[in-house]
Amino acid sequence: MPRPDTTTGPQTAGDVLSPYLHTQAGEFLRGLRLHREAGPDSGGAEEAARALRRAARRIGATLHTFRPLLDPVWAEALRTELSWLSATLAGEHACAARLARLLDGLQRLSGAPQVPAPRGETTAGAPAVGAARAGALLDRQLTLARTRAHSAALQALGSSRFHAVADAVALLASEVPLSGSAAAYAVEVLPSAAGLAEQRLGQAVAALPLARAAHPYNAEALAGLGETQDAPWHQVRRLLRLHRYAQEVLRPGPPYEDDERLLRAGLALDRHRDASEAAAAAAAAARTPRIAPATAYALGVLHADQRHEVEAARFAFQQVWQPMAAVGAQVAAP
Amino acid sequence: MPRPDTTTGPQTAGDVLSPYLHTQAGEFLRGLRLHREAGPDSGGAEEAARALRRAARRIGATLHTFRPLLDPVWAEALRTELSWLSATLAGEHACAARLARLLDGLQRLSGAPQVPAPRGETTAGAPAVGAARAGALLDRQLTLARTRAHSAALQALGSSRFHAVADAVALLASEVPLSGSAAAYAVEVLPSAAGLAEQRLGQAVAALPLARAAHPYNAEALAGLGETQDAPWHQVRRLLRLHRYAQEVLRPGPPYEDDERLLRAGLALDRHRDASEAAAAAAAAARTPRIAPATAYALGVLHADQRHEVEAARFAFQQVWQPMAAVGAQVAAP
Repeated sequence: MPRPDTTTGPQTAGDVLSPYLHTQAGEFLRGLRLHREAGPDSGGAEEAARALRRAARRIGATLHTFRPLLDPVWAEALRTELSWLSATLAGEHACAARLARLLDGLQRLSGAPQVPAPRGETTAGAPAVGAARAGALLDRQLTLARTRAHSAALQALGSSRFHAVADAVALLASEVPLSGSAAAYAVEVLPSAAGLAEQRLGQAVAALPLARAAHPYNAEALAGLGETQDAPWHQVRRLLRLHRYAQEVLRPGPPYEDDERLLRAGLALDRHRDASEAAAAAAAAARTPRIAPATAYALGVLHADQRHEVEAARFAFQQVWQPMAAVGAQVAAP
Repeated sequence: MPRPDTTTGPQTAGDVLSPYLHTQAGEFLRGLRLHREAGPDSGGAEEAARALRRAARRIGATLHTFRPLLDPVWAEALRTELSWLSATLAGEHACAARLARLLDGLQRLSGAPQVPAPRGETTAGAPAVGAARAGALLDRQLTLARTRAHSAALQALGSSRFHAVADAVALLASEVPLSGSAAAYAVEVLPSAAGLAEQRLGQAVAALPLARAAHPYNAEALAGLGETQDAPWHQVRRLLRLHRYAQEVLRPGPPYEDDERLLRAGLALDRHRDASEAAAAAAAAARTPRIAPATAYALGVLHADQRHEVEAARFAFQQVWQPMAAVGAQVAAP
């Protein structure tokens, strides 16, 4: 039976943080290389950009959550730059996904009726025309936005600002600028830093109207068609991600049951964000001057449909969160 | 301790049917008298029309369910006339209720946001204008429809066709034209006739996509914005009412637990029908020529919102029906 290796003594915080950051920095650099090899306009470039963003999110989150154990000035500066890079690279994909979501919705909403209309009515006629025009309008607007995001990403990847980020991450792949506190035992400092992230999440979730979200068809997300009420949910989405990545640092290896639940909660909040932004895009398209009433009508239907999706995502989040609620209440207590 | 009165022998079917029909016929005549006294344009007239329709529905349902125990030609003829009268009297109220439902929806959907919009945006501006115009358009169209329904009801109440119905019901208040089968013992013939009504209901419910309705936010009622899929639910609503009234004949007195559940299931289906018709009215208003895009947009939002309500009503029905599902499956079996 193998015995635990005690010759090296217990792990320090740096012993845990450094390999995690080395790995993520390596993933970032690999994504960067793939992106260059794929060329800017291929499908491979999208895949590579996704890998880049994935690593950038994890590095940024780790710099944030475990800041007291790292060189604070360096950590804050790099995190800001990684956020900028992530946001810049995300734009193109977000526009494409939003368009796909809205066209799917239009298809679903204007689809052929499942049974023949009574008395030979051609009810599908007028709505179908409006839906087709609305689809064309959204396609035009979001393709334009996507092209702009693509150019912005290309420009960013060629900028000296980006090269500075890449250099900083390349350094991180071999050496992590730790603070003196990182010499403390891992078990003594890492869980408390991660616990703070969990506590912030718990407090933010406790402030959500979860009891209301638990009642299906509460129509809250449609009230005033207000995207303004979505902000606390978006904030929970960000805090949940910080919590998830902190758990990755603490417990490498295959996911625990709780990790999977966190993942599913995160997916519900991703859907919430996507539907919220798609609804806003439909509303924005409806403000285009001189559109036909049938087009505006289809966009109105689509807007309400996506707000309905927002409500459904809140319900789904609540369903996943319920079994973790006791934990949430605990960490939310002052 | 009082002993059961055995001097009159066991009840015949006629002994049960006759007093029920006498009572309902009396209610009908009372409603008619109140309607005349109230004058055609007062609030009392609406109340009286409701009482009239309530009794007409019960008499018609009883004539239908227990037809083998009644003079069949008379029963079928009177039932047809009562359906005509009910439908004619219902129009005005339906238009008013539909308008109220749609204006409520517009209010909810265009209401002031609960928190200030970010960056001082006045997002509420344009939608509010569209909602106000949509409200004015619906008000115009449904008020016109209501006025027409009112005239039609007045005309019906003054017609010789109506006087023939009133005469038939007046006769029914004192004597019910029974068939020979009504001389059979009540326990031998009434439950089987009522059972047939329950069986038809069970079969119709079994054909509904209840498993799908049980999943909140299944978005089925929004697919194709199709009112065409609503017909089976409307049919269940009618069959549920026949079943409820048959139970009233069999078991007079305060409602059983099951009766209350039937009542709640019926309310969910009423809501389903109301939302379905309101959605159709919003769609019809959107087909008005030369409306502004903002108006069309608000009507599109409203249409989707009411289809969302249709879906919510199906979910509610399924929730109420679930505890009765075993019974439903049983009676649905061939």
